[in-house]
Amino acid sequence: MSASEPQPPFYLGIDLGGTNIKSGVVDDAGRPLSSISVPTNAALGPVVGLNTLTEAGRMAVEASGLTWGDVAAVGLGSPGMMDIEAGFLLDLPNLPGWVNVPIREQLGERLGKPTILQNDGNAAAFGEYWVGGGRGTRSLVLFTLGTGVGCGIVVDGRILEGRHSHGGECGHIIIQADNPRRCPCGGYGHLEAYASATSLVKRAVEALADEPGSSLAEAQARGPLTSQAIAEAATRGDALARRLMSETARYLAIGAVTLMHTIDPDAILFGGGMIAAGESFLNEIRDRVRAMAFPVPAERTRVAYAELGGDAGFIGAAGCARQTFGTPRT
Amino acid sequence: MSASEPQPPFYLGIDLGGTNIKSGVVDDAGRPLSSISVPTNAALGPVVGLNTLTEAGRMAVEASGLTWGDVAAVGLGSPGMMDIEAGFLLDLPNLPGWVNVPIREQLGERLGKPTILQNDGNAAAFGEYWVGGGRGTRSLVLFTLGTGVGCGIVVDGRILEGRHSHGGECGHIIIQADNPRRCPCGGYGHLEAYASATSLVKRAVEALADEPGSSLAEAQARGPLTSQAIAEAATRGDALARRLMSETARYLAIGAVTLMHTIDPDAILFGGGMIAAGESFLNEIRDRVRAMAFPVPAERTRVAYAELGGDAGFIGAAGCARQTFGTPRT
Repeated sequence: MSASEPQPPFYLGIDLGGTNIKSGVVDDAGRPLSSISVPTNAALGPVVGLNTLTEAGRMAVEASGLTWGDVAAVGLGSPGMMDIEAGFLLDLPNLPGWVNVPIREQLGERLGKPTILQNDGNAAAFGEYWVGGGRGTRSLVLFTLGTGVGCGIVVDGRILEGRHSHGGECGHIIIQADNPRRCPCGGYGHLEAYASATSLVKRAVEALADEPGSSLAEAQARGPLTSQAIAEAATRGDALARRLMSETARYLAIGAVTLMHTIDPDAILFGGGMIAAGESFLNEIRDRVRAMAFPVPAERTRVAYAELGGDAGFIGAAGCARQTFGTPRT
Repeated sequence: MSASEPQPPFYLGIDLGGTNIKSGVVDDAGRPLSSISVPTNAALGPVVGLNTLTEAGRMAVEASGLTWGDVAAVGLGSPGMMDIEAGFLLDLPNLPGWVNVPIREQLGERLGKPTILQNDGNAAAFGEYWVGGGRGTRSLVLFTLGTGVGCGIVVDGRILEGRHSHGGECGHIIIQADNPRRCPCGGYGHLEAYASATSLVKRAVEALADEPGSSLAEAQARGPLTSQAIAEAATRGDALARRLMSETARYLAIGAVTLMHTIDPDAILFGGGMIAAGESFLNEIRDRVRAMAFPVPAERTRVAYAELGGDAGFIGAAGCARQTFGTPRT
């Protein structure tokens, strides 16, 4: 069989989000054969939600051109508080009613396949490790920059789940002890309170009160400011937007350095919507990391963008199913 | 053989410090049969240093009542920059001239035993994991509070060395992004710059300029202020000293929470000279950790003092030698 043909066994990955459920079938080499997305309809609660997850999985198999019989196992990635080992969702902030749901068992029964549960940030990190920006590494940290700051850690080829399923919750490391900003989670001084897209917009709105002359003020007048608008204004040379992006790069570098002095991985990757800001943003993160980290990791740790985009979650979830139930060659 | 009798095989542990070299023979159950200390004489350089390490090892074996033939392997813990996998010391700030020293090979040849090199903070963490405050855990983080803030991480029974021997350098995680204090290492905002004994004294001296009425002013008049004098004044009820200790507990809790949201271990341990401050200091760290961490780790992560004192380093180094060369039952 040539390397370009899909390689069995096949794994179904499902990525549960507050807005959409993404799903796809992935072959043994980590290549997605399909990628579908359906609305989560979070307000309808977990009973309907289980149906929707099941349906998303079926759609992904259909779209892949395979049959159910071809699927060896299923991986589900989910946000929120969970017990990974027990396969329980405990409490999902963006999905009301999903409390104490034995989702691994329920979904496994519905789909009739061996099933694993994984944190969504961990699953995305595993996807990048397997076939994305972390290919060939042994250890990596992935930060996913969007509404919040997601994170996942892979050490020696295994997800660092932690002893209470809280490993790699690095959006909530504390980077500001004194005079901290409040994080959406309720904590203070967390990385997410400084470096998420939401925080970038918040800092922009604060700064505009003092510097109304920025071109961002015009963008703001047209509607709610977005992180994308700020990134674009920075590219056009707007001084305030540049300063805000530079500040964000510094906060992300601070998070990266803390992880380099803790996990010391081969690579630190950044994914999520904010990486649309492009190479100059990445280069600023890199420069600041090199200036702040100890010499050896500063020189040797790869700092790069993630490569799988929005598919990282389901690819990684499928990869976790493969690691648990398959007989991986790597 | 009864459990109270020394259990072969035996391992020699050596803990190289800037001031002293500690060494002891440890049995297969992690019990030290000897514990000796000799001056490092750091100024004499690495050639004399190798002799001193060798001599310290021989003294420890002699003090144990065993012979060289009884020693199965040797573990060396060292501070500074190193390549653990290659067995090289690269640069030791407190030991001038120890640059690019293939210490594992050199010491192994001198002693005629299989030898491993480990970072001293990592070795101490492994010692506490094996037979100290972390007995029975699978994962732990140890902070050693002294002149600096040392650290070591054990995950699933193995030291998290990192890919460039910089794993667990958590005295140098960044806890203050904006308006940071300078760390003795040259970095900014590091945990060590806020929570070491040195930093506690520095913060006290700064505060005394504004509050000369504290009883600490009298202590200061008698000679250089020490962290011990501050802890004692806090116990006696001095308001400034209490505030300084409380602030220190908060900074340590911030470091602990960052590690709980990254590694998510079973236990966070604190060791080193500053734990002489006693139970009230520990309880304040615990209270602040519980208030700041996510609910599940806040409830389940044990926060405690280390138990092996100054012997943790050589016991852990011996334990690392056992893990590498022995056939451990646990």
